[in-house]
Amino acid sequence: MGILKGMRVIEGSAFVAIPLAGMTLAQMGAEVIRFDRIEGGLDAKRWPVTKDGQSLFWAGLNKGKKSVAVDMKSPKGRELITRIITAPGEDAGLFLTNLRVRGWMDHETLSRYRKDLVMVALLGDRHGRAAVDYSVNPSLGFPAATGPEGSSDPVSHVLPAWDCIAGNMAVTALLAAERHRLRTGQGQEVLFSLKDAAAAMLGNLGIIGEVAVNGTDRAKYGNALYGGYGQDFICADGARVMVIGLTDRQWRGLVKATGTQDAIAALQARIGETLSEEGARFRHRAAITEILAPFFARHGVAQFAAEFDRAGVTWSQFRSFAQAVHEDPDLSPENPMFHMVHQPGIGRYPTPASPLDFSQSARQKPAPAPALGAHTEEVLADVAGLSGGEIAALFDEGTVTGPRGDKFFVTAAE
Amino acid sequence: MGILKGMRVIEGSAFVAIPLAGMTLAQMGAEVIRFDRIEGGLDAKRWPVTKDGQSLFWAGLNKGKKSVAVDMKSPKGRELITRIITAPGEDAGLFLTNLRVRGWMDHETLSRYRKDLVMVALLGDRHGRAAVDYSVNPSLGFPAATGPEGSSDPVSHVLPAWDCIAGNMAVTALLAAERHRLRTGQGQEVLFSLKDAAAAMLGNLGIIGEVAVNGTDRAKYGNALYGGYGQDFICADGARVMVIGLTDRQWRGLVKATGTQDAIAALQARIGETLSEEGARFRHRAAITEILAPFFARHGVAQFAAEFDRAGVTWSQFRSFAQAVHEDPDLSPENPMFHMVHQPGIGRYPTPASPLDFSQSARQKPAPAPALGAHTEEVLADVAGLSGGEIAALFDEGTVTGPRGDKFFVTAAE
Repeated sequence: MGILKGMRVIEGSAFVAIPLAGMTLAQMGAEVIRFDRIEGGLDAKRWPVTKDGQSLFWAGLNKGKKSVAVDMKSPKGRELITRIITAPGEDAGLFLTNLRVRGWMDHETLSRYRKDLVMVALLGDRHGRAAVDYSVNPSLGFPAATGPEGSSDPVSHVLPAWDCIAGNMAVTALLAAERHRLRTGQGQEVLFSLKDAAAAMLGNLGIIGEVAVNGTDRAKYGNALYGGYGQDFICADGARVMVIGLTDRQWRGLVKATGTQDAIAALQARIGETLSEEGARFRHRAAITEILAPFFARHGVAQFAAEFDRAGVTWSQFRSFAQAVHEDPDLSPENPMFHMVHQPGIGRYPTPASPLDFSQSARQKPAPAPALGAHTEEVLADVAGLSGGEIAALFDEGTVTGPRGDKFFVTAAE
Repeated sequence: MGILKGMRVIEGSAFVAIPLAGMTLAQMGAEVIRFDRIEGGLDAKRWPVTKDGQSLFWAGLNKGKKSVAVDMKSPKGRELITRIITAPGEDAGLFLTNLRVRGWMDHETLSRYRKDLVMVALLGDRHGRAAVDYSVNPSLGFPAATGPEGSSDPVSHVLPAWDCIAGNMAVTALLAAERHRLRTGQGQEVLFSLKDAAAAMLGNLGIIGEVAVNGTDRAKYGNALYGGYGQDFICADGARVMVIGLTDRQWRGLVKATGTQDAIAALQARIGETLSEEGARFRHRAAITEILAPFFARHGVAQFAAEFDRAGVTWSQFRSFAQAVHEDPDLSPENPMFHMVHQPGIGRYPTPASPLDFSQSARQKPAPAPALGAHTEEVLADVAGLSGGEIAALFDEGTVTGPRGDKFFVTAAE
């Protein structure tokens, strides 16, 4: 049933971070109600899309939620959203958002209707300016340190990493604030920004210290692992692999599995340093790579994969997204995290549940994302507490949209 | 005092994910006790390091924790760690780890000593094999989709993004399991793997669907924003900026601020499509870039920065890490998240607190990381409940290390 069963969270959001936060909670058993404009949120058509323009992105980040579509520009629509956010319930009154919060939807106003409201709001930057992963990342220096050694062209990441991190932080914020409410009865607002989440990580990883204390900047090191040994190699069959010698144990395993003990010993003698020191492995990575390269040039992946795994070498093969999906059983229902899910309007494909496996709660199967407004009627009745007549009037005047009638009183999961 | 004040978490860890999880909790007010081997953890010397070999990385990811150094190979040392992990306390009995858990440190064994123990364990992959960010990332396809358009060389990210995501997920797991315990009295184990955390995100972002439903693979798009408009430009002063037209509002703002309305209107007429459709902006990004490029070629950043900000354009400047630290006030104590902190053995530099700002709890100032074993004596007395004589014997026989005596009964934060 999910570890958070009974919790109800309202989400007003778009794009990655807050939708991911809501989905994370939904996949742990919370009832998560996302509200959107009548025409759909800013991310309703976000790429990747199918040939018909259906958003695979939206489907991925809104799995297992309930969807309500409301005219957010009308006073009546705003009143409805207020009512849904502040509806009673011991485990309700929890609101996640990354929409621009103005007046009616800010914490001060909403908490008039529910004093113990917990609201988590993600901003672009701390000044309230818009920022997205694609703008935050260049400003902090990662693209300048990414890409081939010697190149001066910055390379931006493709994974919206800061959004993914911030989304998980929003879950932390909500659970911590709800924990506080359980003990004290107090609601509160938790504010943070995408840029601050990223800036903090720059400090956490030691990079601010590296600049401020050492007075150095970070160069590009290609695909090498910074500060230890880790390098990519092209194998005899054309495949490219990554091998890791971050810890001494990994390093010794790699040397042994490639049969390069003698050459490494000779290198150590020549440089007068032990390569069991991680910094030495990094400084002498070019010489190490030269010693290891012939092994990979002589062998295809199939010739060493099983032996590497048996010996506990930490390694992997570079793949494209398509290769990964087609070749890696960890991305298929062989992995208990994945199930084949039919997403209406899109099709059936491997869909992940939560990566978290709680021993006291069976992992919930992934549910598809809802159609826009699929739960408008249900939520207006069950959460906002409106009568059938009131609901009918709201549909008729266009304040809300969505399918109507008994047959829609099912959740997307069914 | 921190929103989690009163909570005690024990951490047995190395590298990024679990140390980050513990630090996140510490920065929200929890008492976090990290235990390590006598000689320090696997990450004790992790780069970046100072000229003296002090780890800036370790300092960054262990801020505000207590440190205990124990001979983990000896039965007595293991007994001590067991005692610390399973010590009584309503808000204690919480254990985070990414160490290889064998026998004495697995959930089954530990929960004999404290039935309601909550343990969150991060594995490499679901098969129990070692995996690190540098090995997981290539296997899932991101490097193959990163870097200059047309290139076939994979580019691995420099930010250990999966570790940062998994670390935040570990916090979620711990808070959700502790919430369950508060209500039911039940402890539990939460297992997940770094690779599953990454594989789930591949699905959440719609990439598995893109492969499985569309039958396509993702090409490299350089620094372009996939599925909308976002591109980097070199300005008249040589600076490089990123500009974003992800939403229609951002797009219109960008066109207006660059004075390219007429040229964009002409382009729309020529292609017979409206660029207010995000997919059209992506497909026609080369033509759009051609229209925008002269603006940036004519202007230095100083000439348009204020106007872009005033007009609400979503943009940023590419910087190196050093430029970011030196030029961006958001990375300095001008930002209330940052404080100048003296890290013993390293120096004084801007250090981040938690990005989360709880209205019911003043944000804790960042505390430095502890020296290895700095709290051994304190924790043995206060948490393990040992007598002065017992503690002295443990130090004398070398089962534990760390500074001794009254003057060390201070926390690193003081």
